[in-house]
Amino acid sequence: MDSNLGGRKVLILGGLGFIGSNLALRLVEQRAEVTLLDALINDQGGNRYNVQPIRDQVRIRIQDIRDSEILASIIRDQEVIFSLAAQTSHLGSMQNPLDDLDVNCRAQLFLLECCRRTNPGVKIVFTSTRQIYGRPQYLPLNEQHLIQPVDVNGVSKYSAEQFFSLYSRVYGLRTTCLRLTNTYGPRLNLRGASTGFVGVFLRKALMNSNIDIYGTGTQRRDFNYIDDVIDALLLAASDSVKLNGCSFNLGHTSHYSIRGVAEILRLQTGISYRCIPFPSAQAAIDPGDCYSDFSQYNAATGWTPKVDLEDGLARTIKFFQEHRTHYWEPYYDSGV
Amino acid sequence: MDSNLGGRKVLILGGLGFIGSNLALRLVEQRAEVTLLDALINDQGGNRYNVQPIRDQVRIRIQDIRDSEILASIIRDQEVIFSLAAQTSHLGSMQNPLDDLDVNCRAQLFLLECCRRTNPGVKIVFTSTRQIYGRPQYLPLNEQHLIQPVDVNGVSKYSAEQFFSLYSRVYGLRTTCLRLTNTYGPRLNLRGASTGFVGVFLRKALMNSNIDIYGTGTQRRDFNYIDDVIDALLLAASDSVKLNGCSFNLGHTSHYSIRGVAEILRLQTGISYRCIPFPSAQAAIDPGDCYSDFSQYNAATGWTPKVDLEDGLARTIKFFQEHRTHYWEPYYDSGV
Repeated sequence: MDSNLGGRKVLILGGLGFIGSNLALRLVEQRAEVTLLDALINDQGGNRYNVQPIRDQVRIRIQDIRDSEILASIIRDQEVIFSLAAQTSHLGSMQNPLDDLDVNCRAQLFLLECCRRTNPGVKIVFTSTRQIYGRPQYLPLNEQHLIQPVDVNGVSKYSAEQFFSLYSRVYGLRTTCLRLTNTYGPRLNLRGASTGFVGVFLRKALMNSNIDIYGTGTQRRDFNYIDDVIDALLLAASDSVKLNGCSFNLGHTSHYSIRGVAEILRLQTGISYRCIPFPSAQAAIDPGDCYSDFSQYNAATGWTPKVDLEDGLARTIKFFQEHRTHYWEPYYDSGV
Repeated sequence: MDSNLGGRKVLILGGLGFIGSNLALRLVEQRAEVTLLDALINDQGGNRYNVQPIRDQVRIRIQDIRDSEILASIIRDQEVIFSLAAQTSHLGSMQNPLDDLDVNCRAQLFLLECCRRTNPGVKIVFTSTRQIYGRPQYLPLNEQHLIQPVDVNGVSKYSAEQFFSLYSRVYGLRTTCLRLTNTYGPRLNLRGASTGFVGVFLRKALMNSNIDIYGTGTQRRDFNYIDDVIDALLLAASDSVKLNGCSFNLGHTSHYSIRGVAEILRLQTGISYRCIPFPSAQAAIDPGDCYSDFSQYNAATGWTPKVDLEDGLARTIKFFQEHRTHYWEPYYDSGV
């Protein structure tokens, strides 16, 4: 399956974020015509430094996807749109549920409406989350698993997925959704509450602080290194009609406990870790053991993750050690 | 199970609409303290005449549920809230998808947020739709059936349901959702595109016009008379904890083809009917045969519908013949 978008006009919503910027770097390598749109909302991961190596080879628009008129004007002549702009904090979605719905669902519906009206031939790839399944009834989670989100973020993202699927079925739009698991790597958002636990642990390790694990840390999870996720996104953008209207899990065959991740970081950086009681707000939305079966996406595209967690974390630490001033040092004293 | 709300403070969102006003009439009989909020949006069913018999016994506020500040101020001292205000047109939801999402989902999330913050002990009943299931994989539809909405309305309503369920699980809010099937009876909205096919057929019959059936009219459906739905809503508002966080189907054991409904109207009013080709916009979102299994709600509350379609339609026709000037005559020439 062809995952090269060389020569194509590609728009990345959330293009200065963790995944968006890594995708942009790859697309510039492929010689695509890349436009990045990002609102640079505090602590959501958008960071101009993420695209420093390609800043003269991409168009950058600082705009919020909720600003519907600007979005409408930009999408008209694109061939591929990656819709990655998101409110990603699960806890934040409970604190500001309407913001979460507006970014993760309402703006996606507006995007679909614009594409249907002005650019119906465009390919759209949307990044969803395996969090939509909620507490697993069985493992690994496959796409047939019951959907019962444990937080507002999960409801918003799943509603958006349904709109992507609906617009494909009713209007023939070429949409594909990927349900990401914990994704990490260079340019990961290490700031604020929006980052997942891998981001928090990495920042602690990079600051030579010790890691606090909520609860026992025995919950098992899977992890995808960013390069594997970029491969998956490019495959999703291919012209294959069998991907249209579908949602697929990403995932990894190796699973680690949260404590196991801390242990890898201890071995790689020398920090230590301890277990502390689960804060009630986090406990209420924690899904427990959680990892995904990606065989459906593998069957459709041949995708399989290539990077294991030890190797991926080592590469990530190396990146951040070289670029630390652009990522977490200004937040050294923020305590988050 | 006690379904009497006498003496309670009850708020009905969409209180001047078809279901809201019939509920208000019953609640006034029960001597509840009733507040009605309605935006009187064109052709959505809100009609001051609906509450003519009780206009001095209820408080009426003409407000849009999307006006968040006003909603917040009204809900604070209520004991029971029926959230019935809705954009109900399936075709309309495809023409104005963002409006549909705002009314049917976003405003519901705001309502939940307000209740959580200022009135966490309130009971909330939300009316959803069996349309969320999409094209049936088997019949009758039970609550375990796959959810795959065929239109934006279905996605919006289901997303709202998920928020009601989530706020119950996470915050202990007492929420119950009912998935209504075709509901008809006195005060049914007969105007514009928001009415379902029963409303369109009834208006034609009442105007002595002939009925056009899209396609063959052999799709089988179920129908609930308004009094049965009011019974169901009052039961949902009871203090039973086993209803909290749940969604239940309503439905009827008798099913009729669309052509069968036209035939009943022919016998009762003397009009005739014919089949015409399916317009493509409607065909794209028609779910085919569709009727619900309400045994789960029956087991939880003892509810069962008591009125059959012939009797219910006869009562409905009698009501509209007596009150015609307040319902459809101003729209005689509108052709819709």
